Amino acid sequence: MHIYTNPDPAQWAELLRRPQIEQAVIRPRVEAILDDVRAHGDWALIRYGRQLDGAELTDLLVSPREIDQAVTRVDPVLADAIRQAADNIERFHRAQAFAGLELEVLPGVVCRQRSVPIQTVGLYVPGGSAPLFSTVLMLAIPARIAGCREIVLCSPPDRRGNIADPILFAARLCGVTKIVKAGGAQAIGAMAYGTESVPKTDKIFGPGNQYVTVAKQLVSLSDVAIDMPAGPSEVMVLADDSADARFVAADLLSQAEHGPDSQAILATDSARLASRVEQEVERQLQHLSRSGLAAESIANSRIFVVKDRQEMISLANAYAAEHLIVSLHDPWEAADRITAAGSIFIGNFTPESAGDYASGTNHTLPTHGWAVSFSGVNLDSFMRKITYQEISRRGLEQLGEVIRTMALAEGLDAHAHAVRIRLEE
Amino acid sequence: MHIYTNPDPAQWAELLRRPQIEQAVIRPRVEAILDDVRAHGDWALIRYGRQLDGAELTDLLVSPREIDQAVTRVDPVLADAIRQAADNIERFHRAQAFAGLELEVLPGVVCRQRSVPIQTVGLYVPGGSAPLFSTVLMLAIPARIAGCREIVLCSPPDRRGNIADPILFAARLCGVTKIVKAGGAQAIGAMAYGTESVPKTDKIFGPGNQYVTVAKQLVSLSDVAIDMPAGPSEVMVLADDSADARFVAADLLSQAEHGPDSQAILATDSARLASRVEQEVERQLQHLSRSGLAAESIANSRIFVVKDRQEMISLANAYAAEHLIVSLHDPWEAADRITAAGSIFIGNFTPESAGDYASGTNHTLPTHGWAVSFSGVNLDSFMRKITYQEISRRGLEQLGEVIRTMALAEGLDAHAHAVRIRLEE
Repeated sequence: MHIYTNPDPAQWAELLRRPQIEQAVIRPRVEAILDDVRAHGDWALIRYGRQLDGAELTDLLVSPREIDQAVTRVDPVLADAIRQAADNIERFHRAQAFAGLELEVLPGVVCRQRSVPIQTVGLYVPGGSAPLFSTVLMLAIPARIAGCREIVLCSPPDRRGNIADPILFAARLCGVTKIVKAGGAQAIGAMAYGTESVPKTDKIFGPGNQYVTVAKQLVSLSDVAIDMPAGPSEVMVLADDSADARFVAADLLSQAEHGPDSQAILATDSARLASRVEQEVERQLQHLSRSGLAAESIANSRIFVVKDRQEMISLANAYAAEHLIVSLHDPWEAADRITAAGSIFIGNFTPESAGDYASGTNHTLPTHGWAVSFSGVNLDSFMRKITYQEISRRGLEQLGEVIRTMALAEGLDAHAHAVRIRLEE
Repeated sequence: MHIYTNPDPAQWAELLRRPQIEQAVIRPRVEAILDDVRAHGDWALIRYGRQLDGAELTDLLVSPREIDQAVTRVDPVLADAIRQAADNIERFHRAQAFAGLELEVLPGVVCRQRSVPIQTVGLYVPGGSAPLFSTVLMLAIPARIAGCREIVLCSPPDRRGNIADPILFAARLCGVTKIVKAGGAQAIGAMAYGTESVPKTDKIFGPGNQYVTVAKQLVSLSDVAIDMPAGPSEVMVLADDSADARFVAADLLSQAEHGPDSQAILATDSARLASRVEQEVERQLQHLSRSGLAAESIANSRIFVVKDRQEMISLANAYAAEHLIVSLHDPWEAADRITAAGSIFIGNFTPESAGDYASGTNHTLPTHGWAVSFSGVNLDSFMRKITYQEISRRGLEQLGEVIRTMALAEGLDAHAHAVRIRLEE
């Protein structure tokens, strides 16, 4: 890890820069896949399943029977862990429910705001070496709580045409209504446009590789909403002498094992802690199953030794981390001054992995600095807030002159007329 | 207006189709402007001010003295109307404040969610024949309530290099911190990248012409968040025999005067009402100052006579109108079954113009069917919800096994290790 001691704040932007995301190269390929899915529907999905996943699919949808069988095969210890995590996630997301708002602004002028579920949502769950069933929990649980009517899940099949058992287990547990054997850009196209088997969705959620990311971005321009822009995962740890170097090192490594493009950054006001963390990272790295991957990623990671607590906080706000671990004495005092982060982990016994799986918060969070403007996925992400106004004749009499004056000043005569005609008689 | 009687539901999608938005033609031109602003900053803005607005600007920012003078020139009646509208908008948006959430999920596992303001926001206010000061209220008031630190407003100058007095009046009233004399794609570029005079913003809000719309879309891909995709304004009215044909006609016309690409749709179960509204539209059209514009737009508008109340509601949900007027007996029973709309106007005395200006709700709403997945602008639009978790040693002891089991099943060894090392001793 590279240690920067007292870097000039003028250089922070450069030192905190994320890896550039290069999408231009794959964009034409993604566009071709999307066009193909739009034109050929299921047939295109089956063809891509053969070409890209090596699977001969007869049916794109997972059958209830397949799910029944998958459920029985899941290790009971894992099943129990998933159920407990789901329970925590459910409770914290249910607590986010908006009760609605009603305000009589003036006598006879009542405004309301209510949350209404998005009707059809699409969830993408990546395939790859290990089944990311935790993502199913993070997306499907709030969708079900919100009251979405159709919850579609797409995930790439393996060579035998199956989706991993724990994903199917989690999907059933969380109320997914349709599971589709499709991955990559073609899955995003299917959920954006609809096919014979896949309903057109209103909003698409979830992480994925570069193809998925570019596809989500392209379809978001005119066809469907998406959760947020995506980038590689990242963590920043703020730590002082009250932190435990072993824990900090473990947190940096748990980010690093995601792969070489993920970032792990430590900001500290303690040179001693910095060097102990560096040693601990080297020591712990030896024992990890993914040590090759983590070593590559850790080589890109950075330690900043800054002059005081205030600089740590400024650095955190400048970076706007997806995950921010606050291992400082009086951590809440610092957390209260954080203006940009996806999710914040307070104190020495709150590893990022707690939020990744089971504390109850969502792990689908803004990366690449998007935390300055985006929230992580939460219950609101699956709803819209609709406003309502109800005005009585008396209310309009009070408000009418204001509306007419403003409308006429904006040159909108008919807007004024719509008030006048109601108050004429 | 074209009347469709009992259209086949299979044809609804076609009959409710919005005008296609053709952006490919202007996209290269917008890209060139954005590149220019990114490269040349203020200098490019001044050059475009000369070329496109015909203004020779010596300073891009409106000075406090200019605002002082503008404020004194605003007609006191208009000033008073703006203040009253601002007061209603302020009260309804202030009522939307999120108090924060704290939940102890398990003993020693505490999750929190809080709203944190976006630090720097950019508001776009179009120029054109009339100054749209109402948009200033709708964007700046919630930004100030949210606690945004920098509220930048861009609006095109007139040929003398000035922004209209009521816009400056509203901007000062609502706490805008910087007013920039720039419009079009160049203003969006300035707020996306920053220039010498214009701060880089985190999120850009507001309506605009096709150049502005395309520019917002392009910068949203990698540089800055935007409020929502934009399209022409639209209204749908649901009316039965309890409605007043004169009022319905006035509401359709107040939408139509926005221009030929805006849509006004009536769905009713009463053939009698349909024909009376048609006659009323013709009659009222004669008296409007913008009758030419409105006539052109009304020619594209449609009346659907459907068989019953349920079909009206289904049609409204299929269309997902920006503005939905419910002029039905028992209007709330119907409104409760609406799953997609930007803002809903209840009863015979609630014209759309009330919400456009002064009822307290926001008028920046999802168009073009985006109401299926987007909310209108509200207080949340200027904030992010950050989650926090704080786990005690005892809490981690309870949760640790769940996290480890799940992490190992996902092949993420270091995630499990970050828990294990904390519980080792």
